[in-house]
Amino acid sequence: MLAMSTYAFEDFPVGLVRELGPRTVNKEEVLQFASAFDPQPFHLDETAANASAFGGLVASGWHTCAMVMRMMCDDYLLDSTSQGSPGVDHIKWLLPVRPGDTLHVRMTVLEARPSNSRPSVGLVRSNWLVLNQHAQPVMSMEGWGMFGRRKT
Amino acid sequence: MLAMSTYAFEDFPVGLVRELGPRTVNKEEVLQFASAFDPQPFHLDETAANASAFGGLVASGWHTCAMVMRMMCDDYLLDSTSQGSPGVDHIKWLLPVRPGDTLHVRMTVLEARPSNSRPSVGLVRSNWLVLNQHAQPVMSMEGWGMFGRRKT
Repeated sequence: MLAMSTYAFEDFPVGLVRELGPRTVNKEEVLQFASAFDPQPFHLDETAANASAFGGLVASGWHTCAMVMRMMCDDYLLDSTSQGSPGVDHIKWLLPVRPGDTLHVRMTVLEARPSNSRPSVGLVRSNWLVLNQHAQPVMSMEGWGMFGRRKT
Repeated sequence: MLAMSTYAFEDFPVGLVRELGPRTVNKEEVLQFASAFDPQPFHLDETAANASAFGGLVASGWHTCAMVMRMMCDDYLLDSTSQGSPGVDHIKWLLPVRPGDTLHVRMTVLEARPSNSRPSVGLVRSNWLVLNQHAQPVMSMEGWGMFGRRKT
């Protein structure tokens, strides 16, 4: 498993920057996500959204998180020694994300260290900055990933 | 709008506790969410999940967040003066969430204050603790909500 994955703990040194995506926000998916998980009018109903403070339909912040997760998966996680994540901090929803927007993510590694309790695992703390097609930051967050190490 | 909603800023005083849910985790939904947003093998493929450190299929942490969001919506948000959220902190995925688990959420209000820049709005900071059917904490997070005020 370790030998077969392209990315292991050692491939995420402090200071590394990766660009993930792009992903265009699909209106049908915005409505589906809202219908399932976040049926507030400004996520679900175009007429109500137009009349709201948002001035139009916006994606649920959790949908944006989920889209970022998918960009991580496609860029590196699915071909890595990832063992999941204990959590995420400082999610900031900075600007509305609208159908038709094209998002990409700038990942920066902030901290990387072997696990004290599990020497075969390393912990990587990263910042993910989500930008739209106008280079405006629409979301940011920080989180820890656990990755198997190549050398123990 | 304000007059028609049951819940406004004034209904979330510091120390308030609300119990949200329950919601039973549906296996088809776990697989659908994973397929769309988080196709790591332990979220998507039962055989691979059984062989993983999780010992079986587990919901994506983002799916758990989305289920919590839906419980908030159904309990109070959809009948409130909510104006969205600027962000969430300290998401901790503490234990695996598995198909068939029944989740509920204990919400505790930590802080509540009028907005400095927008006197018609109040800010509420809450902790959401997610428990399974064995009363085990499986997730926790803190976040801010913005609510219209009854009296300005």
